[in-house]
This record gives sequence, structure tokens and C-alpha cells, in this order.
Amino acid sequence: MVGRTLAPAFARLGHDVVVGTRSPEATRARGGWVVALPLVAFRDVAEDADLVVNATSGLVSLDALRAVGEEQLAGKVLLDLANPLDHSGGFPPTLTVKDTDSLAEQIQRAFPRARVVKSLNTVNCSVMVDPQRVGDGHTTMFLAGDDADARALVMRLLEELGWHDVIEFADLSCARGMEMWLPMWVRLLGQLGTPEFNLMIVR
Amino acid sequence: MVGRTLAPAFARLGHDVVVGTRSPEATRARGGWVVALPLVAFRDVAEDADLVVNATSGLVSLDALRAVGEEQLAGKVLLDLANPLDHSGGFPPTLTVKDTDSLAEQIQRAFPRARVVKSLNTVNCSVMVDPQRVGDGHTTMFLAGDDADARALVMRLLEELGWHDVIEFADLSCARGMEMWLPMWVRLLGQLGTPEFNLMIVR
Repeated sequence: MVGRTLAPAFARLGHDVVVGTRSPEATRARGGWVVALPLVAFRDVAEDADLVVNATSGLVSLDALRAVGEEQLAGKVLLDLANPLDHSGGFPPTLTVKDTDSLAEQIQRAFPRARVVKSLNTVNCSVMVDPQRVGDGHTTMFLAGDDADARALVMRLLEELGWHDVIEFADLSCARGMEMWLPMWVRLLGQLGTPEFNLMIVR
Repeated sequence: MVGRTLAPAFARLGHDVVVGTRSPEATRARGGWVVALPLVAFRDVAEDADLVVNATSGLVSLDALRAVGEEQLAGKVLLDLANPLDHSGGFPPTLTVKDTDSLAEQIQRAFPRARVVKSLNTVNCSVMVDPQRVGDGHTTMFLAGDDADARALVMRLLEELGWHDVIEFADLSCARGMEMWLPMWVRLLGQLGTPEFNLMIVR
């Protein structure tokens, strides 16, 4: 769902988008793509890419990225917007990693030559690509990463999407707090009855 | 610090406030109280109270409440605003309980006859008692508890303090998300350079 929302949105912004899946044929057969975008196997998705977006479930992100390949991800900016939510125990979901570590850091350790940036994981995908949907666009997005150039590239993408209030952390370990927002997010989803909300940091 | 901020604020609202400490003599000798309030031992603090506030460090909250006594807390509304932050490993602090449990739930299990409500833990104590300090008072406070009457009592106290946007969860386990906000809070403290900020839930 996240990939199906993001890919067309990035294409509408004028970016060349290629979508990677385990089996492009199976994905194509399922249908449901709003716009026609190239579908390729994971191992071919990062080639020539300036930015690789991890829009897989947090539970399988490491496997999916391994299928892309360490060599293919070397030097790439890798935007991780996944959340390590485990729904197998029912509601509420739990986090498979937290507090002293994060999914983003696990990914960075597994692919040390990639330049991992965490962002967008704190909102519903409809809000990721259209922040105007909530509070006339005046809500807050977080961004965390160790590499300054990688952060700057993701920051430009966020601005293109319409994010104006972005709090930038020069430290990927801040992804811990970003991912630990999800337990509150899922409760607010139930309480507010809509996934289209976000926090604004007021200072 | 939290108790020293809350107790005078509650007194200014017209409430009869009694402060409990391990050793009232030692507390008195340290000084630093803005207004004169009765200081008593933990075991005497809950007597005649409509509301008991846990403003101790999360690391020692269970011990402090045991010193108050199970019998003394029976039937009482117990407002828990502590956070289970462990600073012993340096920065960032970690959480001693999280995800599948919370300090508030630990307290509820340890004192099953108390009516535990979690609130106020998501902001600095200066903001707890004066929400106008941030965004003209238009930020969000959470409140979670299993007992409806207990929630209503704490809700009235929040309104007296000036909290207008309170999201009420009829489930104490929502304290998990409230406590897991702290890892982001401590990073924002560093990034923003002030503890006087808060989130607003925009929907």
C-alpha cells in the first residue's frame, strides 16, 4: 500500500521511478497500480538510482534489501520509512526492535555502504505524499541520518512533497524515537477513527 | 523537581496539598520549596486524599508507592506522571519497561485496588502546570486509565491547569505509547534547546 501510494506520487513530481518486487509478474497480475510504472525484480531496482526507498513491511525489510543486494546499495541514499510492527500477537502490535536499537540502524549495519535516512514512517502513506491533507500542511516531519548529503537529498524530496516543518537529526539513532511513536499512532488511529492525523511539534 | 513544581501549582488552584517524602526532615533541610506546604512521610500522604500523585522518578516509583502502602492506596485515584527512564548508561536514556508493558501498568498490578490514571508524563513539569507556555495552550495532552470516574477526576484537574485538548484513552495500556514518547522527547530537547515544547495532534 505504501509503495503503491509513493511510487505514483514521486512520478508525478517528475522523478523517474522504478518499482522493485519479489516477482514483477505476480505483482503485475495482481493489478491495482494507478499509473503504469516499470516493475522490476529487487536485484535490478537500485541500478542507476539516486535514491532507494524501503517501502516494505518492517518485518521483511532486511530480507527484501538483501534481495536487492549489498553491492547494489553501496553508496546509495536509502530512505527507510518502514516500521518494525509485529501484528502476529493481535492488537496492539508490538515492535520487533526498540529503545536501544531501531530498524533503521539494523538496516544501516546490514548495509554499511548505504547511506540510510529515516523519515516519513510517522504518518499514513496518504499523508506522506500529501501533507496538506492534515492541518493545511502545518504538521511536523522528522528526518534522521548520519550522512549529511543523504539527509539533504531526502530533505529536498520532503519539500517537493509539501513538508515545511522538518526536524532534522544528524544521528540515525534518533530513528528509535521515530519508530517508538508507532505504539501511540496505532492507539490514536483507533481513538480518532482516521489514519489522516499527525503531530505538530509546538515550541 | 516535578513535585516541587506541581505541589504549589495545585495549591494555587485551591486544593489542599500534602507532600510525601522518604524523610520530611531531610527534605525540609534541603529547602527550595517555593511555598510552605505540609511535608509528611510517604505512609501518611494518602490519608484523606481524593487524589494521589506519583511524581517520583520512574526507577523508584514502585518502591515509593510501597512505602505509601497498599492499604492506604486502596480506592484512591492515583495519577502517575513518572517515566521509566534509566540514565545509568549515559545518553540517550533507555526505558526500563516498554512496548508490551508500562510503568503505569506495573503500578496498577502492584496496587490493584488503586485506580491508576496516566497523564502529564509527556511534557516538562513547567508545561504540566502551565500549558499556556507552549503554543498559547493549544497543544495536546493524553490521559489513560481503566476507571471512568478516576479519568473524570484527572480530566477536571487538567482543565483547571488549562489543558483544553485532552485525548482520553479508556485503557491504561495506552500508557505504553505515552511512555514511549520519551525517547523522542529527549532527542527533541537536545535539538530544540528547550524543554518547553509539546506535540499537538492535528486531525
